[in-house]
Parts: sequence; structure tokens; C-alpha cells
Amino acid sequence: MQELRQMLRRVPNFPKPGISFKDITPILNNGEAFTSVIDALCGLAALHSPTKIVGIESRGFILGSAVAYAMHLPFVPARKKGKLPAETVQARYALEYGEDVLEMHKDALVPGDRVVVIDDLLATGGTAEAVCHLVESLGAELSGLLFLIELTELQGVKRLASYPVHVLIRE
Amino acid sequence: MQELRQMLRRVPNFPKPGISFKDITPILNNGEAFTSVIDALCGLAALHSPTKIVGIESRGFILGSAVAYAMHLPFVPARKKGKLPAETVQARYALEYGEDVLEMHKDALVPGDRVVVIDDLLATGGTAEAVCHLVESLGAELSGLLFLIELTELQGVKRLASYPVHVLIRE
Repeated sequence: MQELRQMLRRVPNFPKPGISFKDITPILNNGEAFTSVIDALCGLAALHSPTKIVGIESRGFILGSAVAYAMHLPFVPARKKGKLPAETVQARYALEYGEDVLEMHKDALVPGDRVVVIDDLLATGGTAEAVCHLVESLGAELSGLLFLIELTELQGVKRLASYPVHVLIRE
Repeated sequence: MQELRQMLRRVPNFPKPGISFKDITPILNNGEAFTSVIDALCGLAALHSPTKIVGIESRGFILGSAVAYAMHLPFVPARKKGKLPAETVQARYALEYGEDVLEMHKDALVPGDRVVVIDDLLATGGTAEAVCHLVESLGAELSGLLFLIELTELQGVKRLASYPVHVLIRE
């Protein structure tokens, strides 16, 4: 995945001073690279024989839905508060200042479902952990988590230690 | 596409009184239906021999990225203001009250690109029209627009009359 690493665009001071943003759009904007990322994620997802793929809003939608399609599986969005129209379960997660809420439809998963969660970036792991709680609150099994990029310094993998985590690019 | 129509969930008074929200999550959450939607969109996109697929944030990401993957094409996100980290072009579009802004990275498209734009819902067509302007401002050709659902009463197709528009479900 050395080539993928080189395709990441690192944008200094975005979205605020001191942050180096990892921009995945150059990877998405290359048909060969995008295909190889999705194929790699499918191979990792298949290790867990999932019945459903969950993508986290909104870059997780881009990766998760393509994986779901390639595996002929259902796709379930985990969304920010107020976006899903039917009855939801909610989980809070900490931001640097304050907190935010993620939601999933109550009828999105059922007991017996084995779920692989996909997002673009693993930072502190707070968002992913919230989604794990949503999945489990619906009686489904959290089978694995896939990320395109891990910011290793932030040690999100430790926070998700009770789940199998796979990462394509370590920064 | 009669079966797909029946799978749409119509949620009254969401996101506000008087609006019947068209919820596509039951379609996404059925592996067979989701696959058939993406395959149908790919067939329509192929009519225009695109070089890139643009998806509009954020439900357009779910459909657009899977189409891009299936066609081995690059995927380009059109995002709400402030989300894209590098240099962008911007287009305003009217909301019921006020206006909003969509952005695309300046380096996302080049002259010679043939672009198919994908979103879940065609309402007034204001959002899609803004994306068409972004695509053209970068010198690329807007080859076609694909929507899962059209709200026919709002006559968005008229607003997009200068472009080929394809729709899977008419409401």
C-alpha cells in the first residue's frame, strides 16, 4: 500500500491550525487506486463473513457502499443526528470540545446480523466506538472494523481493542 | 422498478411538517435491491461513456461511489461548503429560505473529462444544477445526470433540460 500512501494529500492547518488533514480525494479520483482500495477492503471484510456493511457518514459512505455492492450485501448508513427519518438508536461520542451524536435506524440490523463497519480514518476511535455500540444495541454482532487510514499516534486501535480492526494505510 | 417503488419508505412530516420524506434506506438495506439499483445506474451511466462519476453529498456518495467502483472509474465528491481541504470551485443554490454552497476540488476534473452526476433525489433540481455548473467551470463535459427518485411535481427535469437526465423511480 506504499503507492496509496503516496497518493494521500496532506493539507496543513485544515480544518484548523495545527491539524494536517489526510485528503483521500486523490485516491478516489484515480480509477485504478479506488478499485484497488475497495478490493482490498472487500478481502478484509470477507474474513468476517458479514451479513451487512455499515458506513459512517460521510466519507465512510464512499468506501462502505462500494464494498457492500461488490459483496452483494446490504448497506446501512450510520448518520449524524437528525438525518435519518424513521425511528433510531443514538450514541454519543466526544469531540475535542463537547460531544456529538450518531444514529442508526432501529430496523437497520437484527440479531444474527454480522456487521463490518467501514470509515476512511481511524483517529481516536471515538466515532467508531459509538457505531459499535449502536450495532450491539440492536442485537447484531460487530464482526470487524475497516479503515483506509490510521493515525497511529492517537492509538484508536487501543480503544477498539475488543474488536478486530484492519487498516490499509498507517500514518 | 415497481418493486423498488414499493420498498421506498415514505415518512410523513420529515424533516418538517407537510413534507413526505422518501427514505431509501430500505432499498440500501436489501442486498438484492441495492445491487439491482447500482447495476441499473451503471447501465444508464454507460450510455454516456463517462470518464468520471460525481456524487453529491451525502446520499449521492452511497450511489455514486458504488457506480464508480463497478465501472472502474474515478469518483469525485461534490461537497457542502468547508468540507474539502484543497482549493475548490463553488456554486450557490437556492434553498426554500436562503441559499447554500456546494464545492468541488479544482483539480478534480480536467477538460476532456465526461462526467455523470449521481444523486438519490431530484426535487427542484437546484442542487444538481449547481453541480453541473461546477463541472462545466472546470472545463469538463456534463454528460448526464442520474437519480434514484424524481419528485415529478417539482419539475426539476425542466430546470435540467439542457442535460440528459435518467431516473429510476418517479414519485
